Amino acid sequence: MTKEDLLKVHEQIKPYVHNTPVLTSQLINKMCNADLFFKCENFQKMGAFKMRGATNAILNLSKEEKEKGVVTHSSGNFAQALALAAKSVGVKAYIAMPENAPQVKKDAVSGYGGIITECGVTATEREAAAQKIQEETGAVYLHPSNNDDVIHGQGTAAMELIEEHPDLDFLFIPVGGGGLIAGSLLAVNAFAKKCKVIGGEPKHTDDAFRSLKSGKIEFNSKTNTIADGLRMHLGDRNFPIIKEYIEKIVLVEEEEIIEAMKLIWERMKIVIEPSSAVAFAALLKSKDTIENKKIGVIISGGNVDVSNLPF
Amino acid sequence: MTKEDLLKVHEQIKPYVHNTPVLTSQLINKMCNADLFFKCENFQKMGAFKMRGATNAILNLSKEEKEKGVVTHSSGNFAQALALAAKSVGVKAYIAMPENAPQVKKDAVSGYGGIITECGVTATEREAAAQKIQEETGAVYLHPSNNDDVIHGQGTAAMELIEEHPDLDFLFIPVGGGGLIAGSLLAVNAFAKKCKVIGGEPKHTDDAFRSLKSGKIEFNSKTNTIADGLRMHLGDRNFPIIKEYIEKIVLVEEEEIIEAMKLIWERMKIVIEPSSAVAFAALLKSKDTIENKKIGVIISGGNVDVSNLPF
Repeated sequence: MTKEDLLKVHEQIKPYVHNTPVLTSQLINKMCNADLFFKCENFQKMGAFKMRGATNAILNLSKEEKEKGVVTHSSGNFAQALALAAKSVGVKAYIAMPENAPQVKKDAVSGYGGIITECGVTATEREAAAQKIQEETGAVYLHPSNNDDVIHGQGTAAMELIEEHPDLDFLFIPVGGGGLIAGSLLAVNAFAKKCKVIGGEPKHTDDAFRSLKSGKIEFNSKTNTIADGLRMHLGDRNFPIIKEYIEKIVLVEEEEIIEAMKLIWERMKIVIEPSSAVAFAALLKSKDTIENKKIGVIISGGNVDVSNLPF
Repeated sequence: MTKEDLLKVHEQIKPYVHNTPVLTSQLINKMCNADLFFKCENFQKMGAFKMRGATNAILNLSKEEKEKGVVTHSSGNFAQALALAAKSVGVKAYIAMPENAPQVKKDAVSGYGGIITECGVTATEREAAAQKIQEETGAVYLHPSNNDDVIHGQGTAAMELIEEHPDLDFLFIPVGGGGLIAGSLLAVNAFAKKCKVIGGEPKHTDDAFRSLKSGKIEFNSKTNTIADGLRMHLGDRNFPIIKEYIEKIVLVEEEEIIEAMKLIWERMKIVIEPSSAVAFAALLKSKDTIENKKIGVIISGGNVDVSNLPF
């Protein structure tokens, strides 16, 4: 992707997404002995960066494809993002949601106009349900993270951050399915070559960390991390980008995620989800690296059940 | 206070406080069928609007007074505000804090350089402790809400909101000791005469509501509201201003405060304290009044123990 390609992506999705604010905290700067800039995608429409990639993917469909709609299977932010992005563009969104998905998430998806089909909870059952919808409706299947248009859309958060702060030394990003970090790496490579990108990943789902070591896509045998947005493994579209451009991945313990999340809530007065705290937790573990540097952190989202907090 | 007087106050404290952001939420606008503008003093230094009044009061001291320092008794936001404001200006702050005040609040005050004296928990014991410090040090006693300079400083939050949105129909503000609402009323009277100011007050501590009815300062026999910043009664400096300019006070139940707080956290992704939610709860109870209007809401602060939430 050239600079021009990425700028075109940004131009295209601009009317549908927020240019989210970049917040700072003197207290956290002092604590880290560095200048931190938090790109707050928790303030994005539907509460997460996923709105960017979903919008870009839908806008890139042909007229015929748009008429038939889009389909995905998800119980999380991508379901909401696809539903809202589709609604904004005037396209139907079919979402296969596992029957055990929380009612609040189902309500959010149908509130955005998504057409929900309940399905089983295993990956196989979910994929089968999405495929059935696809066959019946002709809707285009969109993967939450392993899709070029999605990846490029997700990269626009980093682009906006770099536009405001072109001289970052490091950028910390959470690593889940790989869409956000791959898109961000493309943006950094195009617009801020000197900036090094460090991924934060939960130790309990360290597939990306192991993938970088082995050189091939690894999987998680368990997904028991509180960072529910980061349980997916990488895919063949994003892994090559990650492998080429990433500086490293820092693994973080569950307690470190919770501590980092609490620190942001209490000190910055913003609501962030555990997945967002993973990047900041990785930063807190890298104090020697970041001292006196200018650091970006992508706060990926803020969709969290405030009645059910880990602290 | 003339426009010029108020502008001078703002000019004076500007270097020491944040011009906090004004946030909006499409979803909450839709829910209320009105245009809402939230002035976010939870993002103020030390996490609450009290920084404004404390700073103004300290800056207005004479050189001799500044040398001797300031003293107050408080277990809440004003203790932190006075400590930080004094530190910014280079003045000593003595704070009498009840011995049962949470350690986290004591740590915050001493972290800002405040000199803490522990005292008993009753109003009499607290006042006696502050008076003793005053006698020993010559420090100037500053009341958290019943002091002209404090009142004028607190009014600058509304001034900034009006500067951005000069055509508000209503402004909702929490009512506690009366400093914030009195200052805001002066600002509205000077800069946005058409805007009506509605106070929100917990039903459990409805002293201001009763004071408006009786025409004299009333007191609370109990202070058992979750809105811990609103347990104080009005004073002789702020009550006359409130009586003259306020449209009305809307009383809210404890459950309404908690619901309003949860709504803001979940939908706007910001951390606000229960006292801040009282103004928004009053607004939610006034849907007929506000329909299709342009409404300001002052989010007074965000200092809350996230490990101990009411939801």
